[in-house]
Formats: sequence, structure tokens, C-alpha cells
Amino acid sequence: MQKVEHIGIAVKSLDSAVTLFEKLLNTLCYKTERVENEKVNTAFLKTGETKIELLESTEADGVIARFIEKKGEGLHHIAFEVADIETEMARLKNEGFLLLGDTPRPGADNKLVCFLHPKTTNGVLVELCMEKK
Amino acid sequence: MQKVEHIGIAVKSLDSAVTLFEKLLNTLCYKTERVENEKVNTAFLKTGETKIELLESTEADGVIARFIEKKGEGLHHIAFEVADIETEMARLKNEGFLLLGDTPRPGADNKLVCFLHPKTTNGVLVELCMEKK
Repeated sequence: MQKVEHIGIAVKSLDSAVTLFEKLLNTLCYKTERVENEKVNTAFLKTGETKIELLESTEADGVIARFIEKKGEGLHHIAFEVADIETEMARLKNEGFLLLGDTPRPGADNKLVCFLHPKTTNGVLVELCMEKK
Repeated sequence: MQKVEHIGIAVKSLDSAVTLFEKLLNTLCYKTERVENEKVNTAFLKTGETKIELLESTEADGVIARFIEKKGEGLHHIAFEVADIETEMARLKNEGFLLLGDTPRPGADNKLVCFLHPKTTNGVLVELCMEKK
């Protein structure tokens, strides 16, 4: 793991959350992106080497909508940047972590990503991510 | 806000969580510390410029014990490093954020800290922190 690439935050309204986090972090949102396969609209802000990724569901049955229903708005996941995602997936599988998927899939922000099941990570949804080449 | 200084994770057992996060992050815990006024034992690991702070309650009625009772183990707060905590507290108060306390208080890891109420930050418990001088 090289660094915390981003922290994902589940929000009901991307527009209001962007306004709020721009005030909080005292910096402007520099990108928004729709990720079809995750059913989310995302918005990014930067602080130091880490991004804050705001996540709004595009559909009532999306994973973010269901998260908010269950737990409310708030911290959703941490994403760690890795040098080689397949090597890291193999290492973690070997250590007993449960990976959600056998191969990396496309994520927001030009990344290949893989999630780890929170039941093997103390309740924390962990994402591995690597810039697409 | 200068960077994500640390991410706080609520855990039931610090010992098991340390073992788990050492495997996950592929790095060793470099410090543990008891913070009496917060009723927590903490353990720190580092990835890039950000620390992962594992938090175990020292008492049944501690804030971490109550968090876990309500929401389960997992992501608890994000701490942002600020250049001058009193200036940043004044700026955020002026922007309409609700601060928990009027003056910074001592936190783990030789810091002065102040928390923002999650109801004004989209459900995210936010900490401001600054190295004690």
C-alpha cells in the first residue's frame, strides 16, 4: 500500500455535499464523474496527497443508496493506492482477506479497483486502486 | 486543511486489529498510546503521509464503545492537519459548522484537536489537528 489515494463519503445530494466540502476543506471540487457500473455520481476534492470522493447514488437500489438507508450519510470506504493491483490482491488473498471479485474492475478516476469485504477488515470497506496504464 | 493527518477506526480489540492492519497495510504498527481524557487506547500505522489510528475503548461507556454498539466496528473519523487550529476553528464556525468545544484540547500523538459535529458535515465526524508546539 503506497498511500491513502482517497476516502469515499456517501451523500444524498452531490450538489449540497460539494458546496459543504468546498467550505470545509477550503478548496474547490476539481472533477465530477458518473460511474455507470457502480451506479454513482462522484465529485472529487483534494487535500494533501489524498482525494475526498463524494458518492451519490444514481438509482434507488444502488449500493450507496442502500448504505445510506442502513447507516446514514458518512464515511463509506478508504482506498489505498497500490503499485501492482494483481500482486497486492494475491498477497491479501493469501493473508486471508476476502476479495470482492477475482480480477480488478474499472473504477472512477481512470483506476482499476478491487474491494475487500468489511467482514475481514474490522468493518472497514477497503478499496485497492491503481492508475490504468 | 493541509492533508489527511489520520483516519480513525473504531475496533473492539486493539491487539487483533493491530495484527490485521499490519497484514493489510504490509507495515508495522509504530506506536500505541493511551489517551485518558478520550477513554481510548490507540495504535498507529502509517501509509504515505497519512496515519491509520486504531481506537479501542478503555471503558464500557466510552465514546468508541458507544459508537461500536450503535454502528459496529469501522471508520470513525477523518482528521485533517491544519496550520493554525484556532484560525481554522474561527473560519469554520463562521462558515456555519458546529464545533465540539470552543478551544482546542489535547489529543493523541502530541496534538491539539477539535472535532466538528457530524450533523453539519454530511454525517462525517471531522477532527482538526495541529502538532503541539
